[in-house]
Amino acid sequence: MFDVEKIRADFPILSREVNGKPLVYLDNGASAQKPQVVIDAITKAYAEEYSNVHRGLHYLSNLATENYENVRGKIARFLNVPDEDEIVFTSGTTEGINLVAYGWAMENLQAGDEIILSVMEHHANIVPWHFLRERQGVVLKWVDVDSTGALDPQAVLDAIGSNTKLIAITQLSNVLGTVVDVKSICAGAREKGVPVLVDGSQAAVHMPVDVPDIGCDFYAITGHKLYGPSGSGAIFIKKERMAEMRPFLGGGDMIREVHKDEVTWNDPPMKFEAGTPGIVQTIGLGVALDYMMGIGMENIAAHEKELCAYARTKLDGLNWLNVQGTAPNKAAIFSFTIDGAAHAHDISTILDKKGVAVRAGQHCTGPLMDHLGLTGTCRASFAMYNTKAEVDVLIDALELAHELFS
Amino acid sequence: MFDVEKIRADFPILSREVNGKPLVYLDNGASAQKPQVVIDAITKAYAEEYSNVHRGLHYLSNLATENYENVRGKIARFLNVPDEDEIVFTSGTTEGINLVAYGWAMENLQAGDEIILSVMEHHANIVPWHFLRERQGVVLKWVDVDSTGALDPQAVLDAIGSNTKLIAITQLSNVLGTVVDVKSICAGAREKGVPVLVDGSQAAVHMPVDVPDIGCDFYAITGHKLYGPSGSGAIFIKKERMAEMRPFLGGGDMIREVHKDEVTWNDPPMKFEAGTPGIVQTIGLGVALDYMMGIGMENIAAHEKELCAYARTKLDGLNWLNVQGTAPNKAAIFSFTIDGAAHAHDISTILDKKGVAVRAGQHCTGPLMDHLGLTGTCRASFAMYNTKAEVDVLIDALELAHELFS
Repeated sequence: MFDVEKIRADFPILSREVNGKPLVYLDNGASAQKPQVVIDAITKAYAEEYSNVHRGLHYLSNLATENYENVRGKIARFLNVPDEDEIVFTSGTTEGINLVAYGWAMENLQAGDEIILSVMEHHANIVPWHFLRERQGVVLKWVDVDSTGALDPQAVLDAIGSNTKLIAITQLSNVLGTVVDVKSICAGAREKGVPVLVDGSQAAVHMPVDVPDIGCDFYAITGHKLYGPSGSGAIFIKKERMAEMRPFLGGGDMIREVHKDEVTWNDPPMKFEAGTPGIVQTIGLGVALDYMMGIGMENIAAHEKELCAYARTKLDGLNWLNVQGTAPNKAAIFSFTIDGAAHAHDISTILDKKGVAVRAGQHCTGPLMDHLGLTGTCRASFAMYNTKAEVDVLIDALELAHELFS
Repeated sequence: MFDVEKIRADFPILSREVNGKPLVYLDNGASAQKPQVVIDAITKAYAEEYSNVHRGLHYLSNLATENYENVRGKIARFLNVPDEDEIVFTSGTTEGINLVAYGWAMENLQAGDEIILSVMEHHANIVPWHFLRERQGVVLKWVDVDSTGALDPQAVLDAIGSNTKLIAITQLSNVLGTVVDVKSICAGAREKGVPVLVDGSQAAVHMPVDVPDIGCDFYAITGHKLYGPSGSGAIFIKKERMAEMRPFLGGGDMIREVHKDEVTWNDPPMKFEAGTPGIVQTIGLGVALDYMMGIGMENIAAHEKELCAYARTKLDGLNWLNVQGTAPNKAAIFSFTIDGAAHAHDISTILDKKGVAVRAGQHCTGPLMDHLGLTGTCRASFAMYNTKAEVDVLIDALELAHELFS
């Protein structure tokens, strides 16, 4: 039984006040708060069980290595990936996608080859591909969303040409909340032999993710959005793609032997993990995933669906508010502007005075802002610990902002 | 007044036992333990003040951004760098040196250009340069150490030829403990117009570092060795070198504008910092540096010098023990093998039974092992919280190991 009050009690920051008001944290799309079990795990890791990993044989080193390496299996289970050797630890989605860009794409793509992106990608899933455009003459092909913010899988598949070498696409827009049918995209792309990278930064927070069912080649997640520590993350990479990759970051652990005039690589996934890793962050991420799986991703999704419907109805009642993104399959992320009024930053400042934390700006989605013809939006993004009562506080604060600026 | 017992009391893990014995942690070369102030700062950052940084305008986001960005100035002060915009946050030295390899060297070096390395570099300061050898035909030139493990600065300068484009060198060997006169190397290199990268991973832990006095172009440090969190670090990059660099990791924050067919970059140092950073790790690193500066780097260096002299005399008394590295200017890092006996791993296992944590293996220094004709060593590496009594425990444990294996 999903008990939101019990869950809220697990997150110490949620009981704090901001500007004299109870915190209503609706900036989860940027980063989620952390449950006490994650904070406690970090403390324990440093205060009782800390050492570097992999390279030692003493007690603490073995213990830290075990605690750290166990997380690979947890991430695999979280994504329903049978073989944990297809999981590479990263510092987050940005590093994960850069690993694919530098390690796989720069090695395998030539001038004139194409990468297909949707117009609503996050900069983390755009800029690494711009590097390939600038440095290697790779062509970026963009697929638009419709007027509701939905993305037709067929439109993505129709964009595939004989030079298409990769599709890189989000499973859940961080601005519009649109859920993308990545499974259909992967199925169609597979028929044409085109690998697919899925940016799971947002999706994995809000719904059960089954990577083999999706059928993608790469699936990137980021720990800090998954109620885990900053600087943690992972990427699933299919074995066949790993075999086509050169190493990315060079340093300790990712090598087999280093000599003056020769270097050989460790086996994947270690081949792609250089130097002392984010040991304690990764241990904390494991605890965060255990926490989510303990609650149940289906239960989290059901709670957020209810929240989404409630918020949607309430926001629709504000006829001076323009919500961007009204796709039928949409998560509880609401980007909006206010008629005739107020810059997004000004709205967020008013909301902040009421204790409501939202984000204002481009949300790292330049091409989407171009597409929408906007310079920025306010965004309220929900998480498992949010409540209908918090939606009401948001609505009240928005009404105040509208009054002040109209 | 340096009070080692007071300092020890600040590190919770030092009061634990291992295998029924008090922990004697001599694996600081791999990673250092954390004082309670660092652990508390992490807890506070997550439990009371957490948000993503840079992109929000709400209270918690402003607070987290301030806490995070303040660390740039702390790192600058720690390295005596006047302009904090020359400090780039990284996840550690490995990422820092890869940033220079991908961002500066790959952009500016051609086939036939040379990079000078010492034979005692860590893999983090070797493998990124092997990438340039393999991918761009850059030539690696190696400078040997003498029989004591000392590196003659003139030997490095003599290796400079008309195609030399970079010297990449450690300030303190993680295996031999050798302190390198990087200031003389930089002075000579500057006359010939050759930039110098200094790997400060070990040096910055054990001695005051004054980057302008050294005169290098790049100086990399890693937080987890500096009593700070795993996954934290920074690199100093001289403004002139920054101006010659292309971005490395692509994603949010490092851009100014992103469009479908164009992307422009943020100003340095942000240009080199992509995506959600290691927010809380960096905040923790700031606290760790404050802690070190509070004690005083001169005081830490003086304590460790005394420890080093004591350990050196004691170890010299074991005539069946071969210490690698006897340079006059040497830090408290002792790598050794035992005559006729025992693989390094076996020795470390015996020591572990006595609660003594040392590392065994190649210590990420393949070329140095080739140079020494060894497959590995045991390494006892000291930190500010170690004591002469712990040296005695090490000696007793070594005598036991010698007995068992002889």
